[in-house]
Amino acid sequence: MAKTVYITRRETFAAAHRLFKMELSDEENFKLFGKCSNPNWHGHNYTLEVVVAGDVDNDTGFVMDLQELKEIVKTNIIEEVDHKNLNLETKFMKGMIPTSENIVLGIWDELKDKISKGKLYSVKLYETENNYFEYKGEL
Amino acid sequence: MAKTVYITRRETFAAAHRLFKMELSDEENFKLFGKCSNPNWHGHNYTLEVVVAGDVDNDTGFVMDLQELKEIVKTNIIEEVDHKNLNLETKFMKGMIPTSENIVLGIWDELKDKISKGKLYSVKLYETENNYFEYKGEL
Amino acid sequence: MAKTVYITRRETFAAAHRLFKMELSDEENFKLFGKCSNPNWHGHNYTLEVVVAGDVDNDTGFVMDLQELKEIVKTNIIEEVDHKNLNLETKFMKGMIPTSENIVLGIWDELKDKISKGKLYSVKLYETENNYFEYKGEL
Amino acid sequence: MAKTVYITRRETFAAAHRLFKMELSDEENFKLFGKCSNPNWHGHNYTLEVVVAGDVDNDTGFVMDLQELKEIVKTNIIEEVDHKNLNLETKFMKGMIPTSENIVLGIWDELKDKISKGKLYSVKLYETENNYFEYKGEL
Amino acid sequence: MAKTVYITRRETFAAAHRLFKMELSDEENFKLFGKCSNPNWHGHNYTLEVVVAGDVDNDTGFVMDLQELKEIVKTNIIEEVDHKNLNLETKFMKGMIPTSENIVLGIWDELKDKISKGKLYSVKLYETENNYFEYKGEL
Amino acid sequence: MAKTVYITRRETFAAAHRLFKMELSDEENFKLFGKCSNPNWHGHNYTLEVVVAGDVDNDTGFVMDLQELKEIVKTNIIEEVDHKNLNLETKFMKGMIPTSENIVLGIWDELKDKISKGKLYSVKLYETENNYFEYKGEL
Repeated sequence: MAKTVYITRRETFAAAHRLFKMELSDEENFKLFGKCSNPNWHGHNYTLEVVVAGDVDNDTGFVMDLQELKEIVKTNIIEEVDHKNLNLETKFMKGMIPTSENIVLGIWDELKDKISKGKLYSVKLYETENNYFEYKGEL
Repeated sequence: MAKTVYITRRETFAAAHRLFKMELSDEENFKLFGKCSNPNWHGHNYTLEVVVAGDVDNDTGFVMDLQELKEIVKTNIIEEVDHKNLNLETKFMKGMIPTSENIVLGIWDELKDKISKGKLYSVKLYETENNYFEYKGEL
Repeated sequence: MAKTVYITRRETFAAAHRLFKMELSDEENFKLFGKCSNPNWHGHNYTLEVVVAGDVDNDTGFVMDLQELKEIVKTNIIEEVDHKNLNLETKFMKGMIPTSENIVLGIWDELKDKISKGKLYSVKLYETENNYFEYKGEL
Repeated sequence: MAKTVYITRRETFAAAHRLFKMELSDEENFKLFGKCSNPNWHGHNYTLEVVVAGDVDNDTGFVMDLQELKEIVKTNIIEEVDHKNLNLETKFMKGMIPTSENIVLGIWDELKDKISKGKLYSVKLYETENNYFEYKGEL
Repeated sequence: MAKTVYITRRETFAAAHRLFKMELSDEENFKLFGKCSNPNWHGHNYTLEVVVAGDVDNDTGFVMDLQELKEIVKTNIIEEVDHKNLNLETKFMKGMIPTSENIVLGIWDELKDKISKGKLYSVKLYETENNYFEYKGEL
Repeated sequence: MAKTVYITRRETFAAAHRLFKMELSDEENFKLFGKCSNPNWHGHNYTLEVVVAGDVDNDTGFVMDLQELKEIVKTNIIEEVDHKNLNLETKFMKGMIPTSENIVLGIWDELKDKISKGKLYSVKLYETENNYFEYKGEL
């Protein structure tokens, strides 16, 4: 029987985005996405929580070294999104509307094969203090 | 295989309540419920989190429009509880002791058939910064 | 020249209140105080911050022992307000409309002569996460 | 002797901005402003605190009705900044580099003559959880 | 069908610890545990969340009285860890490296047979604002 | 007339400490400092806020570059306290009882001549979520 512990690393980043579909007019985009479709962009301080599940290593008492998890998140995600435009500059969001739902899916795909010990359990994103989004992989 | 994303809307409300049973004396209620049974009422700033689980709509990148979820929560819940007395004024709490356990059950029943896309996954209520309560439906 | 350090003790309490004037009708009170005049009461989790200013005692490195400040705030304030009705049960609010402005004035008067070292500098009250109130004594 | 109470209204908004000077190259702007000069914009969830100082009205127990202050801040500030581009769309920031220092100066000027009771005491802005800015008027 | 509600009690404690293995040199420990292996100790304000799952008692509207849960957590855990050295003084951590992974396992074992109603569902520990750990029992 | 803006940089660190006087017995120290005098140490996650006051530079819109302030705080303070024992390892606390009062005085002295633009206005330290300390220089 496994003693699975869930470890979470929290990071923050600031980014600009716009919700819109190229084939629609500004007016139609406004109907679909409201003020989030502003053609001049807007932005957020996002808070990201990455959860890894795994057994505790008897040798270290760690699931995995959180410093290592921090580095994996920084290199693969934060450098791609912090102080960036999610529509124009973030490679893993290419061709996707940068809703927070799509961002957690994108981050999951970026990270899922890069966790060195245990495995990726959840990606949670706070877009504002009132709206959060979570993905736990395919069920 | 479905890519289920969990989206959360957070709202706050302020309400008065009293924990007591009409058939008991004040003294007996105090023994059962402590200071929460004060006959002159007391109150809280409650924080409510409503979680909806669903697939991401390819057209919008949304599980459901959080503005719409916000409206559903406002109309069905917040208007019934904000700046109200939960014992005397909240219809969906009628006949129930307004413990936070019963409030999350009541909110669940109010909301479960009103989610337009995806389905209700969790109702979480923070009564104070130290006490929280969650219901995820029947197992 | 004095090296004044400001030390803060934070406490929380939950209370019921109603904003109203006895000489007005419910309708007139509603015009003046909005939903805060609900005759069936409502309530809040209040957060209180009490700030004492004073020199650092060379012997202890303290302005005053925060455990002692905690006790002073508990005995004189928290016991009078926690799980109480501020209109009906709090002695130091007798005859005052329990707005947060009046509560910080009332708490100031209760505490100002009871600080054993240094002196009371500020009383701050958070009524909700969006509304706060502070009093620093007569200028 | 006046009993001045300080009342605070907290609001949040999400906006895009870029720190740069038109007369400089992208490279020179990067030297001066770092990643905040990204030509594709970035953004933040800003938290704004507006503090009004005044005497407590004996009739209402209010310095001023916080609902009224909320409306003043919404109409004059939030509508100009929320889901906007601070460089391109916010009238009161026209011609100014939208650093948080300049934003608090701009908000102060917008609000200082619009407070109906008491007077504007402080404008505080949280750009991230680690960086805040405050202006209290000319000394 | 059961209506399981999850209730959470949050507590905080402050403790010192050091991550190291006695059989290794300081240098080797530093390679394995980084600055957390400082032989002179360091410490944290830990936040602990204990979640109990159970049916709602029709008589009281409680899963279990949170005051009782608070007492169970205080007596069995907080008194063993607050203002203590987790390596030297906490009985239930004896012989374990006091990583947060091992602490949640230790707290789980201490509490799992002491919950009077419902059963222990989760132990969550925040070591810093960026690093959290959770254990939900054997799967 | 100067337009002084106050800019704040927030940092966190984790440290161990013990409040005690060498000339006293453990028992006497316990009487004076309570559980904070534990000879086996305890620790905290401290939150530090450093406030600099200054005019806004017309050229940059900054009081001073917050990245620069962050570096000054990191180099002079955080490296001396993070994951350290404040009694044994922090040079600027040598010979002082590491109460938070003394820590803010010590940090003030370290920083006051190192602010490159504007001047140091306040050093604020949160020892726990309930106890904070602030120093603003000699009056």
